[in-house]
Amino acid sequence: MKSDLDGLMKEAKLDAILVLGNADHNPPMYYFTGGGHVSNAALVKKPGQDAVLYCNAMERAEAARSGLKVIPLRTGASEVLIKQPEYIFEEQNITKGRVGLYGTLDIGEVLSLAQAIRNTYPEIELIGEPPENSIFLRAMETKDESEVARIRKMGKITTEIVGMTASFLTQCEVGDDEVLLKDNGSPLTVADVKSKILLWLAERGAVDVEGTIFAIGRDAGIPHSIGTPDDRMRLGQTIVFDIFPAESGGGYFYDFTRTWSLGYATPEAQKLFDEVNGVYNKVIDNLDLNAEFKEYQKMVCNEFHRNGHNTPMHTEGVLDDGYVHSLGHGLGLNVHERPWSRHTSPDANLLRHGVIFTIEPGLYYPEKGMGVRIEDSYWVRPDGKMEVLAEYPYDFVLPMKKWKKK
Amino acid sequence: MKSDLDGLMKEAKLDAILVLGNADHNPPMYYFTGGGHVSNAALVKKPGQDAVLYCNAMERAEAARSGLKVIPLRTGASEVLIKQPEYIFEEQNITKGRVGLYGTLDIGEVLSLAQAIRNTYPEIELIGEPPENSIFLRAMETKDESEVARIRKMGKITTEIVGMTASFLTQCEVGDDEVLLKDNGSPLTVADVKSKILLWLAERGAVDVEGTIFAIGRDAGIPHSIGTPDDRMRLGQTIVFDIFPAESGGGYFYDFTRTWSLGYATPEAQKLFDEVNGVYNKVIDNLDLNAEFKEYQKMVCNEFHRNGHNTPMHTEGVLDDGYVHSLGHGLGLNVHERPWSRHTSPDANLLRHGVIFTIEPGLYYPEKGMGVRIEDSYWVRPDGKMEVLAEYPYDFVLPMKKWKKK
Repeated sequence: MKSDLDGLMKEAKLDAILVLGNADHNPPMYYFTGGGHVSNAALVKKPGQDAVLYCNAMERAEAARSGLKVIPLRTGASEVLIKQPEYIFEEQNITKGRVGLYGTLDIGEVLSLAQAIRNTYPEIELIGEPPENSIFLRAMETKDESEVARIRKMGKITTEIVGMTASFLTQCEVGDDEVLLKDNGSPLTVADVKSKILLWLAERGAVDVEGTIFAIGRDAGIPHSIGTPDDRMRLGQTIVFDIFPAESGGGYFYDFTRTWSLGYATPEAQKLFDEVNGVYNKVIDNLDLNAEFKEYQKMVCNEFHRNGHNTPMHTEGVLDDGYVHSLGHGLGLNVHERPWSRHTSPDANLLRHGVIFTIEPGLYYPEKGMGVRIEDSYWVRPDGKMEVLAEYPYDFVLPMKKWKKK
Repeated sequence: MKSDLDGLMKEAKLDAILVLGNADHNPPMYYFTGGGHVSNAALVKKPGQDAVLYCNAMERAEAARSGLKVIPLRTGASEVLIKQPEYIFEEQNITKGRVGLYGTLDIGEVLSLAQAIRNTYPEIELIGEPPENSIFLRAMETKDESEVARIRKMGKITTEIVGMTASFLTQCEVGDDEVLLKDNGSPLTVADVKSKILLWLAERGAVDVEGTIFAIGRDAGIPHSIGTPDDRMRLGQTIVFDIFPAESGGGYFYDFTRTWSLGYATPEAQKLFDEVNGVYNKVIDNLDLNAEFKEYQKMVCNEFHRNGHNTPMHTEGVLDDGYVHSLGHGLGLNVHERPWSRHTSPDANLLRHGVIFTIEPGLYYPEKGMGVRIEDSYWVRPDGKMEVLAEYPYDFVLPMKKWKKK
């Protein structure tokens, strides 16, 4: 939680931190500002002290909404740090020691301002933590009640839209070639479905920051294929629908996946679904408070390996099929954050109180034109129970309402 | 144009460039990939050679849509560069010389991978160009026909939505206190108007990446205030409506501003509008092929200074009112890019063939509760003419259609 940051700074022996970049779509900055239209700002924080926000004077009104102390600049903060770092560093009395830099920024700016700071303050050591285990991701790993409420609300919006999508698809007419048809009789495509999803998100104050995955057939067999816009919606094909919207303005995410087959399923696809579903249930049944997340990844790898699939634990090199990713991840201001579940992740990635994480086993066979993934987001409650934040049925075959039998 | 990149690399004595980060919402990467759901990739390019794209194997299908040669990795590219830079550098035969880094990335990753590369290859000099004049912004400064067509299309969408907004506002009922009312009789707020704009954007395949500015009264007097959600829409107040949507997926932007006063204007606001409008017209009438952009900024500063306003050229320190920004900027994959128009910008920022730029003078008086800005985006055509890419009337007072006189 945010209140852990001071302790984490001390543990990491950081005398100060600078968070750079925009106030929104930039998790470490958002963590302090709560978003807002502030571009190219610099937030300065020392252990035990309140953060201060430097920003272009033109954006001071937006910056003030954060509730932070705001210091206006005549230009963007990175320009000041490149040309005149002492303007900020002297005022904040940072002239030596370990200073951590965080946030997302143009790489040219990062290299230029790092050079300028090193030239001006030889006694400052700039620290760039690999983001996956930074003090921010450690603080963000556990959520307070208001964060849980916001993620839960995004989950409600997500499952509502998933339900609308299922209902929309199953009410379509179907042509003789098993392709779904639009009202005008032309084939329904992935692009058509996605444009509906985008609209439904916008209506609910949510945004599709990173690209909803709606992948059918071969694309479903490639985990991060977002789907081919012109692909036709067709019966009896696996559809991987992975939706991870965020609050508009770059806030909290939800993350959710279902795999569907419209009308009917081929026996091979049904077998693949049953296998993933079985492993999913086995994981959920075994989730324990304070367990190491990677233990479940190992469990899943062993299960799938036993059935003859490739897994990241048993197969060297780049994985083209089988189980090709890790079991899940933390969820918050980042769609992927701590705790991590790779079988090689450090032990400290635990399912502790306040953690929100996904469970998402999957099996992928692009050459067979199919893939299956099931994903929900869980919260480790104060009583130690694992609570799914948005319930939704797991049905694989969605019966068509108007399917005209030939 | 993109074809200028090889020459610009040679001019900057770069032996190779690496572009890092996501394929979308990351202009230097998008310039090569055309977007797509590819996160944490590394694009490598040498002068005169085709670019190569490294990405996580899970995203290889998305990456392949770019048409580039794709090399799959087992993890994200920055993780490879931090832990094993030779994996990419040896294969690309980059072991010494000047290597430019571009794109947007987590600062911790940038500092970590820069350190790893320097440790492994002491003969490599990493170059981080300040982004505002990088080889990318120089190449992007002039647009080819397809880029002009895409920006023009965004302009058409933009002005269509501006028209819908004007029509929506002027058809509202007005209460006795001059506040616009919704159908249910409650006051219409900035948040209500914005949610309509977001929907209209989503319906047209456009996104509000950085936050539409719809600011009334005092907020209108602060150039980058995006507006207060709960503010009521009221007659006789200046409304600054600055809308800069992008193609969904992080493509090309448009940029456009009008200032309105609903029902009537106060004499003071009308005077402010007339002043800005006069200066706007004077600039447009004087635009010349190959002129220095900053000459127009100086012209505007001098005009406004003569009338007693603060300007960046005549006033020291942070500007709280008057003319507080520069006249315009280039427009493309970045909402702000070369050419620049600060009075201190280098001479090389010229209105040359193929440039697309904004002209947006404004005057701001937050303490008086008002501000005015007028903005259009222009293209320097092959025949040297300056063409506005989307026409829209400049009316300041929008007459209400249903205003019930008391």
